[in-house]
Amino acid sequence: MTLRAEFINPFLEATVSVLRTMARLEPVPGKPYIKKGASATGDISGIVGITGETEGSLCISFSKECILLIIGRMLGEEQKEINEEVKDAVGELTNMISGDSRRRLEEIGHHFLGAIPSVISGQGHEVKHITKGPILSLPFSTQAGNFTVEVCFK
Amino acid sequence: MTLRAEFINPFLEATVSVLRTMARLEPVPGKPYIKKGASATGDISGIVGITGETEGSLCISFSKECILLIIGRMLGEEQKEINEEVKDAVGELTNMISGDSRRRLEEIGHHFLGAIPSVISGQGHEVKHITKGPILSLPFSTQAGNFTVEVCFK
Repeated sequence: MTLRAEFINPFLEATVSVLRTMARLEPVPGKPYIKKGASATGDISGIVGITGETEGSLCISFSKECILLIIGRMLGEEQKEINEEVKDAVGELTNMISGDSRRRLEEIGHHFLGAIPSVISGQGHEVKHITKGPILSLPFSTQAGNFTVEVCFK
Repeated sequence: MTLRAEFINPFLEATVSVLRTMARLEPVPGKPYIKKGASATGDISGIVGITGETEGSLCISFSKECILLIIGRMLGEEQKEINEEVKDAVGELTNMISGDSRRRLEEIGHHFLGAIPSVISGQGHEVKHITKGPILSLPFSTQAGNFTVEVCFK
């Protein structure tokens, strides 16, 4: 399945909308690009599988600094380390961004289901999507560093 | 959704069968157990989302020593580090174990779909499933150490 241009906006808008609503944060989207094969790197990532029209995966990878700012704002309390509360909040964010993206895709006629998200933690871990298809990479910047949303389909 | 006993064998048998076929390896299953909330730890993990009858996730986490033995046998060449070839092979194993498990579940009347797998690498990373439900943990041992298959549903 090719990653059509119409697929970019639902994921981009969902990410901005969820972070604005949940963390009163305005992430600045960089230029989306298509990559092949390479891995995303982060200190904490939320991953959720997608099925339906085709199979896919959505992954959001944050640096430690960036996620502590986001979850601190989301929970209304400064966060100093990646603890269980932060991991659970990353899972919740991943679920919301996945759900809001799928709702926006539904509006333009594409039906997808989301699996249960997993949260990966570990300094500088890598996430590699196992697909022969292209991977859509959406970079965002915040005042506390960058994060990346990656979407791939079969 | 409760994790019924009938759900244990399809995942257990699929894991043994795939490793036997692909790597001529007989992993020794330990006692399956149900846990709540805790994370799996590994040096490399394959994760795949599940949808259908309910949503879920399947995760296989290996120590470095264990995966180098398995992939070395699978590729017929000694593996010395977790490189791109090893990561891709872990993705392939994850896909096969997920597929074979779902085929076995289908035989007892349970229909599930699998998403695209992701492979996580990074020494001692943690994988946390974001679900309020129980997590089925299937420990296996090999002559090169242990690995764990975890399955959760919503």
